[in-house]
Amino acid sequence: MHTTISSPGQTLVIGDDQPFAIIGERINPTGRKAFQQQLRAGDLSRVEIDVEQQVAGGAMALDVNMGAPLADEAELMVKAVTLIQRLTDLPLVIDSSIPEVLEAGLATYQGKALVNSVTAEDERLHTILPLVTKYHAAVIGLPNDEEEIPNEPERRLELARKLIRVATDTYKVPVEDLVIDPLAMPVGADTAHTVRTLETIALIREEFGVNMTMGASNVSFGMPDRHAITAAFLPLAAANGLTSAIMDARSPDVVKSVKATDLLLGRDDWGAAWISFYRARQ
Amino acid sequence: MHTTISSPGQTLVIGDDQPFAIIGERINPTGRKAFQQQLRAGDLSRVEIDVEQQVAGGAMALDVNMGAPLADEAELMVKAVTLIQRLTDLPLVIDSSIPEVLEAGLATYQGKALVNSVTAEDERLHTILPLVTKYHAAVIGLPNDEEEIPNEPERRLELARKLIRVATDTYKVPVEDLVIDPLAMPVGADTAHTVRTLETIALIREEFGVNMTMGASNVSFGMPDRHAITAAFLPLAAANGLTSAIMDARSPDVVKSVKATDLLLGRDDWGAAWISFYRARQ
Repeated sequence: MHTTISSPGQTLVIGDDQPFAIIGERINPTGRKAFQQQLRAGDLSRVEIDVEQQVAGGAMALDVNMGAPLADEAELMVKAVTLIQRLTDLPLVIDSSIPEVLEAGLATYQGKALVNSVTAEDERLHTILPLVTKYHAAVIGLPNDEEEIPNEPERRLELARKLIRVATDTYKVPVEDLVIDPLAMPVGADTAHTVRTLETIALIREEFGVNMTMGASNVSFGMPDRHAITAAFLPLAAANGLTSAIMDARSPDVVKSVKATDLLLGRDDWGAAWISFYRARQ
Repeated sequence: MHTTISSPGQTLVIGDDQPFAIIGERINPTGRKAFQQQLRAGDLSRVEIDVEQQVAGGAMALDVNMGAPLADEAELMVKAVTLIQRLTDLPLVIDSSIPEVLEAGLATYQGKALVNSVTAEDERLHTILPLVTKYHAAVIGLPNDEEEIPNEPERRLELARKLIRVATDTYKVPVEDLVIDPLAMPVGADTAHTVRTLETIALIREEFGVNMTMGASNVSFGMPDRHAITAAFLPLAAANGLTSAIMDARSPDVVKSVKATDLLLGRDDWGAAWISFYRARQ
């Protein structure tokens, strides 16, 4: 199954016969005080640096989140999307927990965006999916609901089923425009979390065959040498069916791991992409 | 299933509920002209350096190969095994294609060694397995025979079956003392090789449940940035059932990948090994 997102100049196809889709995660003020302050002052210069670094590192799309406390997030999203589309041709992922911000971003964005995200909560489904339909976007679906972020893979599968059913039946979103997030929980909190996440990925692939993405760095939260953990996690996840991740493209170890995985899983004919990726970094 | 090898001071248990077993690969003159010359002159000082580096990098056993052209390999093996057992308590893997060298090494070694290796060729089976029995060693079995190194996973499985049958029936080697090498072929020669190797690993686990090891660096042979490819390969192989690898413990990227995989696959309770591995390197 192919999920396609695009800008006026570029198309990214996500699928299990495609190179693993690297979505740059850094254009996001969460946990970054100085960046939040700049955004409140209407200063988007940090966005330019983040875009440049993610593009240089190998991002194939960019996640854009403007969630700075006490700032006008919708206005910032409009400015950021406009700015970023001047800087790069990469397709964008419009990321907010506020529907108005998503709509502002989608209305501004030139191309077919990926919306980050909708959960299986009824109120979220019926607020966000109409935007997805209206703007012909693709959307990331998180299998949690009002009650829980379930631990059990089978329960996540159930919520993914609900998401897919509501999106495709009620809102006529093509199933290939749904990208499920299997939910990566920190291995440092419980060493069984990753095994469950990998099982969830395998179950979702088997049952629905849809594309999947996740915030890959969540896995290593709280542990030392996080990039090394993420770098070992991504081959495992990709082998089970993860076809994309929102990740920090500035980390050469993590990006290399993804490119090597493409090679090892037979998604890089003749190793041409591996060799040119290597040459570009000499 | 647990494969146990030992020295007088240390025991290494290989198994899928154990940390992935890192066998240091470097005590081997293949492709190292200066080292070969030293060995021909009876100079084993390079061995001391290699042992030190593999131990420092995190090796849990050491592969010892003295295959220098025009040297008396049996004599060198005796000297090397004696020397290495003075330097370290790590269990050893006695590695040679010459049965007399294997026997010299086994007769000298104090403890239960791992023999590297026997193939499914009749003549090899009936020459090497008696040594394995005589010295109560464990042995690495390679699923190739007189005719071929088979590409097809099912054919490798067949040859593994033959190895296991002859070893356990004819020579009464306990099945847990057999470690199968699924045969890693270079991804650079054919990008389908790794997928076949991963399938072979999964099939062997499913059918026999035996431990497996392989020369992990073979996978990246001929490609640039080899360590990065090996580092991405090992999580995939371990998830399918590989429980050990003969690898260069000097590479922090590859060793980290193995330790992170233990953590991610739930073989490192509380992440204690990951954290202490990290601290030891600060």
